[in-house]
Amino acid sequence: MQLIFRRTLVKPGIKNIENKKVTVVIMKIAVVQFSPERGNKEKNLDFILSQIDSINADLIVFPELSTTGYFFLNREETASLAEPFDGPTAEAISEKAEKQNKIIVAGFIESGSGTIDTKIYNSAAIIFPDRKLNAVYRKTHLFYKEQFCFDAGDTGFFVADSPAHGLKLGTMICYDWRFPEAARTLALKGADLIVCPSNLVTNVWHISTPSRALENKVYFAVANRTGTEERNGEELCFNGKSMIYGYNGQVLAGAGAEASDVIYADIDPAKTRDKSFNEFNDIFTDRRPDMYV
Amino acid sequence: MQLIFRRTLVKPGIKNIENKKVTVVIMKIAVVQFSPERGNKEKNLDFILSQIDSINADLIVFPELSTTGYFFLNREETASLAEPFDGPTAEAISEKAEKQNKIIVAGFIESGSGTIDTKIYNSAAIIFPDRKLNAVYRKTHLFYKEQFCFDAGDTGFFVADSPAHGLKLGTMICYDWRFPEAARTLALKGADLIVCPSNLVTNVWHISTPSRALENKVYFAVANRTGTEERNGEELCFNGKSMIYGYNGQVLAGAGAEASDVIYADIDPAKTRDKSFNEFNDIFTDRRPDMYV
Repeated sequence: MQLIFRRTLVKPGIKNIENKKVTVVIMKIAVVQFSPERGNKEKNLDFILSQIDSINADLIVFPELSTTGYFFLNREETASLAEPFDGPTAEAISEKAEKQNKIIVAGFIESGSGTIDTKIYNSAAIIFPDRKLNAVYRKTHLFYKEQFCFDAGDTGFFVADSPAHGLKLGTMICYDWRFPEAARTLALKGADLIVCPSNLVTNVWHISTPSRALENKVYFAVANRTGTEERNGEELCFNGKSMIYGYNGQVLAGAGAEASDVIYADIDPAKTRDKSFNEFNDIFTDRRPDMYV
Repeated sequence: MQLIFRRTLVKPGIKNIENKKVTVVIMKIAVVQFSPERGNKEKNLDFILSQIDSINADLIVFPELSTTGYFFLNREETASLAEPFDGPTAEAISEKAEKQNKIIVAGFIESGSGTIDTKIYNSAAIIFPDRKLNAVYRKTHLFYKEQFCFDAGDTGFFVADSPAHGLKLGTMICYDWRFPEAARTLALKGADLIVCPSNLVTNVWHISTPSRALENKVYFAVANRTGTEERNGEELCFNGKSMIYGYNGQVLAGAGAEASDVIYADIDPAKTRDKSFNEFNDIFTDRRPDMYV
């Protein structure tokens, strides 16, 4: 007989496996798909805060640049909307995360906080209720005209290990999906769940994202946006279809192409940690890095 | 106006692009799916040679261990069927490849050729009509009970560059699919086409193999086998569904699950070499290896 209790942060469950009682942490994660309004930080932030209030989940992922919109053409534009991670926007999200006891990942435009640091990053705020693990991931691989608006990220890929949540959380942003090295690095660093705030303008990523989950045995959640943005006659169409994949690459939840939506999945982070799949094979110990470029 | 002529090895085509004439090499590749009979090298080789005679293609891929069958339990069994690459089985395939002017990749059990070398490999013979580029790839990642029958491959991943065919050919075997580093290494070494002789016993590989093509912008061809093999009450079921993917991850051809089959695709190897996909992004130059584990 197996007894599985959901644990939503504060309710540890117990699983009876062959008479051994083990704690099972089943988290509910949510991905928010919406269309941020370019340049309207107040409106976008209000929406994000209201979603944190209303969504019943332990972890909520918002899209890339969800506080500002996406299609900027130069650094003057992004600088005018940039804030440090301790600025009012991320602070408002932190306060709400603390109040609602939820983990939040959301894209924003980050300005370097040093006085001589004029760097601008396409970043994801990674916010924990107790703030201790709060961190910023700065997008590693810049897409299309982002090179005119942002500096390439310098944080690298890192994992936030929260024993309180039974979760090791890795973050990448959008175009990082295309590089198998990104998810691989996060998985080798211990990620159970990789979240990927995105503003994707093609549909080809659906070919690779389930593989990122499978090849690393991790949960993988893409929070994409919807809507269009136009600049100087060029229109970018964001294709929605946000996805949450299980660690075997299966689809746990998916959103439509055009409408705002919230999708949910229950995940058991600890299940990703045994990388063996039969008596003789383990996808991590079977690696032979001396054979790889 | 664009003029495209098929080139089948000996008929170079000409493409008129904006009044510049460039040679276009369109190769026809074939993947043979069948059920080798375990231990019956003569029968399997006869079939392979007959296929090389009858199939109209420039390159033909056969499954993993296509000359011997798959499910062995110890080194005595594999040693009894092993041959060096200059042994009679690979030599017979080479003679046929030369006669039919075709490139052949086929799995076999390879014995080390040195007098004190008792190694046994799960190898792929890579055979060119003029023999100059003939080479052996020895499977890097061993699956399931192969560790009791084979040594881990020591060749690493390499590319056979044949200007005469306008093709840079990379080879991996079966379980190598699961490691994104395998296809990545081959692609970074210049492969246009990766062939993957296989004896796959699950269906999960279909989640990753199109991504291998897309994430590296290479053609990718999986030659899987069909049928079952039983040893000591354990049955392995080989799942067929051999596939050829285009460099955007799209399916160019696919076989059924159970029947022997030959699938074909026309490929233009040179099209894989420009890794850019818009004015600003190139999936190879955008890589940031300093950020990867």
